[in-house]
Amino acid sequence: MPERDPILLTPGPLTTSRATREAMLHDWGSWDTAFNQLTQSVCKDLVRIANGGDEFVCVPLQGSGTFAVEAAIGTLVPRDSRVLVPNNGAYCARIITILRRLGIACVELPFAESEPANAGAIDDALAGDSGITHVVMVQLETSAGLLNPLDAIAAICRSRGKRLIVDAMSSFGALPISLADSGIDALISASGKCLEGVPGMGFVLARRALLEASAGRSPSLALDLYDQYVYMQRTSQWRFTPPTHVVAALRAALDQFLGEGGQPARGARYAENCAALIDGMRALGFVPFLDASAQAPVIVTFHAPADPAYTFAALYTAVRNAGYVLYPGKLTTLETFRVGCIGALGAHEIRGAVAAIGDALRALGITLR
Amino acid sequence: MPERDPILLTPGPLTTSRATREAMLHDWGSWDTAFNQLTQSVCKDLVRIANGGDEFVCVPLQGSGTFAVEAAIGTLVPRDSRVLVPNNGAYCARIITILRRLGIACVELPFAESEPANAGAIDDALAGDSGITHVVMVQLETSAGLLNPLDAIAAICRSRGKRLIVDAMSSFGALPISLADSGIDALISASGKCLEGVPGMGFVLARRALLEASAGRSPSLALDLYDQYVYMQRTSQWRFTPPTHVVAALRAALDQFLGEGGQPARGARYAENCAALIDGMRALGFVPFLDASAQAPVIVTFHAPADPAYTFAALYTAVRNAGYVLYPGKLTTLETFRVGCIGALGAHEIRGAVAAIGDALRALGITLR
Repeated sequence: MPERDPILLTPGPLTTSRATREAMLHDWGSWDTAFNQLTQSVCKDLVRIANGGDEFVCVPLQGSGTFAVEAAIGTLVPRDSRVLVPNNGAYCARIITILRRLGIACVELPFAESEPANAGAIDDALAGDSGITHVVMVQLETSAGLLNPLDAIAAICRSRGKRLIVDAMSSFGALPISLADSGIDALISASGKCLEGVPGMGFVLARRALLEASAGRSPSLALDLYDQYVYMQRTSQWRFTPPTHVVAALRAALDQFLGEGGQPARGARYAENCAALIDGMRALGFVPFLDASAQAPVIVTFHAPADPAYTFAALYTAVRNAGYVLYPGKLTTLETFRVGCIGALGAHEIRGAVAAIGDALRALGITLR
Repeated sequence: MPERDPILLTPGPLTTSRATREAMLHDWGSWDTAFNQLTQSVCKDLVRIANGGDEFVCVPLQGSGTFAVEAAIGTLVPRDSRVLVPNNGAYCARIITILRRLGIACVELPFAESEPANAGAIDDALAGDSGITHVVMVQLETSAGLLNPLDAIAAICRSRGKRLIVDAMSSFGALPISLADSGIDALISASGKCLEGVPGMGFVLARRALLEASAGRSPSLALDLYDQYVYMQRTSQWRFTPPTHVVAALRAALDQFLGEGGQPARGARYAENCAALIDGMRALGFVPFLDASAQAPVIVTFHAPADPAYTFAALYTAVRNAGYVLYPGKLTTLETFRVGCIGALGAHEIRGAVAAIGDALRALGITLR
């Protein structure tokens, strides 16, 4: 398969469909009605997918998902707040870094990288520190592929009257999320993850009343979500030059998402991919890092082979040459690697990747156990 | 021409070539060597185009050009600085807004929207306020299409030992810029302007020593240019998810830029476009807002017809239906509109646009003078 693009088994940028990429073959004027309607239809669909009703609005933002996370926190969280962050990986830690840069008090609640954030422990932490005003959490911690119990944590936040901001970067579209009456105040994701668009745009689904009460709070102009929202409401345009081709690709990707059957169908395909991946890798002798109960069907961390012939670079290169792109591990202490199961691909491609990994092991003389 | 995309006569997003858009038909892994080489080759070419030598480095940043402007100021300018901003339009005013949000003292030197920033007045301002440490200026103020005298201002900054940061958003690639020994410390532009890529990525060409002395200064994580630079130096990867397709399009656009003959050829084509535009519009009876000496060959502001039948919306729609997208005016007091002359187009397209504007005037019953 010399001229085929490699299949990306990564958490995004990921393999997109040809229809999504072909949507970028057109240029759009940022002032033009056709483009503004495109933006509005994307935002409307994103609110609808999240069951946000009239209470929630979608604010798109140029840049990667992290730009939208910082924009959401910097705009929606008052500086005299005290924020609880359950921490079981690098994306949780990034939220703590953002809070510190913004000068917002932060209480870290650490968990192991293999351990879902415990709702009871969060409840205890809120009970024990009445000064805590907000929880900011990651739904799917991509470092290990770990699923945190969003519904349980949201219910606690609602019952205790705490604001909840959710980084749903690599879960939105794949896992069920319903904003209405959930206890969630804002949720952040991006174009190039489970919606299967291309990267370059994040978005925040924010409680309208909360956003409208956030004028003048953002210390950043570029990351001021309130300004972006108000300007867009007034003009139907983006405040600064939009990534027009990325928006057009997301519109095409959303059409395919809805055509496929929305989140239930997308989630089912990813679950099938994930099962095919874990079954195939187990048959080769690989062991997943996470318990099945904590594993989200998005990206799977495997223990690296103990064989001294193993290096990730060698495995990566051999599998890359066969047409599949793996992803390095991101755990702090263990030697691991990751394989994504999201993107415009199915179990057939996953089995192909597993076969390529098996071939690579043999070629490199690596044995498992 | 029913199925042809409209030609964008706008300051970016603009009309790109088919080769540039087709570069987005491939997906790239953000960890993959092939993509990282793409980024490195783009950065290397950008430094070379600006004659930055070894003293300057290129740091790309996700988002629109304004994100890169805020990142450059927030990272490179110490908080106890005092910054002079010559102001003759909306993009100059945006720099002042960014400085205020960052809490950096700012001295505004106002000029009329039709008046190039006067180098002598800047010299006087620096002489009269020895506390000023930096000048931040816009080379080509897109509000009117006005050219500010970069070389003269840079020479003053160098002789007085002031730092100079230049927003070259809509000039880079079209106008000659040579960083080496210029007095410029950092220069900012973006993918979707005169380099004719698609929007979604800005970049800063910064003096290496200055950037390397900027650790820990940025109040923003996402907009921390130092962190982005150091991470990229260490890993050859972007710190957060890169806009992979936008980068690939910029690589293709740069290949075409260099193939065309670089800045001299690009600037000559735009100058020809600009002359065809102004000649054609004058023949219709339109009057350019700027004196010829202040007009950059990028975007031209025209006085709106005084005829009561005129509205920009009506002219825009009629010309849009003929296949050309105009741009609204951005001046604070006068009724104007703008026509860009940049993008993957030549004098033939410009003459087609002028003809469409003439047809629209007749159809709308608008007379000039």
